[in-house]
Amino acid sequence: EDEVGTKDLDSPWANEPKRHPVLKPAAETPFNAEPPLDILVQKFITPVEFFYVRNHLPVPVIDEKSYELEIEVEGSEKTLTLSLDELKKMPKYSVTAAIQCGGNRRSDMHAVKPVKGLSWGAAAIGNATWSGVRLRDVLKSMGVENDENKHVILEGHDLDPTAAPYAASIPLYKAMDERGDVLLAYEMNGKPLTRDHGYPVRAIVPGVVGSRNVKWLARVVVSDKESDSHWQQKDYKGFSPSTDWDTVDFSKSPAIQNLPVTSAICQPQPGEKVKVVDGFITARGYAWSGGGNKIVRVDITADGGKSWHVAELEQSDAHPGRHYSWTLWTIKIPVEEGKQEVEIWAKAVDSNYNCQPETFENTWNLRGVLSNAYHRVKVSLVR
Amino acid sequence: EDEVGTKDLDSPWANEPKRHPVLKPAAETPFNAEPPLDILVQKFITPVEFFYVRNHLPVPVIDEKSYELEIEVEGSEKTLTLSLDELKKMPKYSVTAAIQCGGNRRSDMHAVKPVKGLSWGAAAIGNATWSGVRLRDVLKSMGVENDENKHVILEGHDLDPTAAPYAASIPLYKAMDERGDVLLAYEMNGKPLTRDHGYPVRAIVPGVVGSRNVKWLARVVVSDKESDSHWQQKDYKGFSPSTDWDTVDFSKSPAIQNLPVTSAICQPQPGEKVKVVDGFITARGYAWSGGGNKIVRVDITADGGKSWHVAELEQSDAHPGRHYSWTLWTIKIPVEEGKQEVEIWAKAVDSNYNCQPETFENTWNLRGVLSNAYHRVKVSLVR
Ligand SMILES: [Mo]
Ligand SMILES: [Mo]
Repeated sequence: EDEVGTKDLDSPWANEPKRHPVLKPAAETPFNAEPPLDILVQKFITPVEFFYVRNHLPVPVIDEKSYELEIEVEGSEKTLTLSLDELKKMPKYSVTAAIQCGGNRRSDMHAVKPVKGLSWGAAAIGNATWSGVRLRDVLKSMGVENDENKHVILEGHDLDPTAAPYAASIPLYKAMDERGDVLLAYEMNGKPLTRDHGYPVRAIVPGVVGSRNVKWLARVVVSDKESDSHWQQKDYKGFSPSTDWDTVDFSKSPAIQNLPVTSAICQPQPGEKVKVVDGFITARGYAWSGGGNKIVRVDITADGGKSWHVAELEQSDAHPGRHYSWTLWTIKIPVEEGKQEVEIWAKAVDSNYNCQPETFENTWNLRGVLSNAYHRVKVSLVR
Repeated sequence: EDEVGTKDLDSPWANEPKRHPVLKPAAETPFNAEPPLDILVQKFITPVEFFYVRNHLPVPVIDEKSYELEIEVEGSEKTLTLSLDELKKMPKYSVTAAIQCGGNRRSDMHAVKPVKGLSWGAAAIGNATWSGVRLRDVLKSMGVENDENKHVILEGHDLDPTAAPYAASIPLYKAMDERGDVLLAYEMNGKPLTRDHGYPVRAIVPGVVGSRNVKWLARVVVSDKESDSHWQQKDYKGFSPSTDWDTVDFSKSPAIQNLPVTSAICQPQPGEKVKVVDGFITARGYAWSGGGNKIVRVDITADGGKSWHVAELEQSDAHPGRHYSWTLWTIKIPVEEGKQEVEIWAKAVDSNYNCQPETFENTWNLRGVLSNAYHRVKVSLVR
């Protein structure tokens, strides 16, 4: 990849990679961008160059020849240092998993009542095949057994202005779970990770919010405590709709891990003129649920819920609890003769039969995370 | 226990056990009954005699001296026959888990638009400590390894008029999961199971709908296929709100396993006169989510969602994915001066940050299962 640095070599942003022009930035530094929504449903596996980018800090410059991953177990002498070559010699494992930003669809929640955070549309999600080494296998080789009370801290090579790294943690039981499929990944869609997606090694934590899928992985620590990073402790948490910036106590809510069920309409887009064919319009989109929960149904209405239509699903054959990939859906919706405008609503149901909330009013939270109410798109009809 | 048979000894209902008079029957034969809702919140562990009873067929008469549990692995010679004494000699394991009927709160959904099924209130749930042998340990001792595509069929000793047993199945991955805690249980709250709760041995499948927690267990079969029973194939499934009895195809929906997040207000009850103390009223209830998901927040409003109040939670310290117990909650809600009547709403949020749907209109299904919209109770205020 070419670099598109500014001329100021002292700038932390001097070594940013080049990005595909189709990515629409929500912020430039750090770089945060999503593709146009209708690109998402064109392929079941999202091409790397169209995959949303969510960076918290400047992209680090890493030489794979000198790269080393440190793995430590707090309170023991156990440590392991792995070069990229050593990682690649270990048993290789692949998992197809969607990764979604905790702020995906924040703009929908913001529209109801303002929230703080980057204004993401509904495309801060992508579905890729990730390959690498199972964290479970590495930890088992070090003699680690599951402990319900422990955590795995994941630290990146990306540094804040005080030289502290981006960091987050996941429960040890997720890392040790046979069906958890947590990876130290070095490939995305069969190729080495790109710099924006964590080159040379990142964590893949399927079913879990993007922010725990730490990129540019430097250090992995089995610990009695969660990461004390800002992102684990003071961000990426849900609150009641009545909690505001004066009353919020971040210690009172658990850090988001598994994400709730969601869906979005990717085609048509808001305001589009949609052709009615034989009394029907066609819509397409994605649906996904965290925690490995499989999408079992996507219901679509174009008449405010008077009639619901069940979409055709394209999905992997993985089972509930391990269904980490997203689901794409397509539906032909009947529309009344003479109607000039309809609002399409989408809602998904997962394998726990959990469903999306209807509206944002009662799930609103000050950080605008977990923005998973019904997706609604108003379009005009042409015949 | 005494038996309260009819005088007709040929009747399949001649050998029913005696029940506590506090249980209000939704049906007498088979016996289906729930306690008054306000009893539920009096104890974190539901006393056996107040635990809802959901029988599909007559209660079988079983002599524990001759009782044998058959365990088979289809396509292999592996079989195991265990007497109750042999089961009791194996390592004993306890789990505190709520069990909830798939039809709990059906009457709330029915009120919006009629559904078919027993008219359960919100008390077809209870929380108990179950002890027995881990199914995982038994299957491992037989050489069974996890296979994502297999199932465990659970057959009861309760027979329909054609002498076919009640049966259901669960995925093998649930049975084999280290954190799945599936039991062949012979004790409830530290005492032998009562006849209504599956004496001498029942399946406990924590986080999963009651109907898979097969009572009076006769036979366990590891199989390539789900149970072909009526209850697995033609019942206990969710559908879109627009699916009716003319269009329903039971083969199109997955059998319910993990249940979605829910909650209920147990005190006060609808229509009650509630004392306002220093501007506040007090409400109590339960919340629970299937799949081992932990309740992380219960939000209560008495002004239609203008202000939400976060309830105090009483819960076990088990972790998400293995938090099988219910959560009890208490809240003091401020009420406006001069108000004569309020409607209290409860909604719970689980560790995947899934939440309850607001209303039943868009989650209605013809069998009235999965009835988990906000719980709403209208009361009058006295000062
Ligand atoms: Mo994120
Ligand atoms: Mo049930």
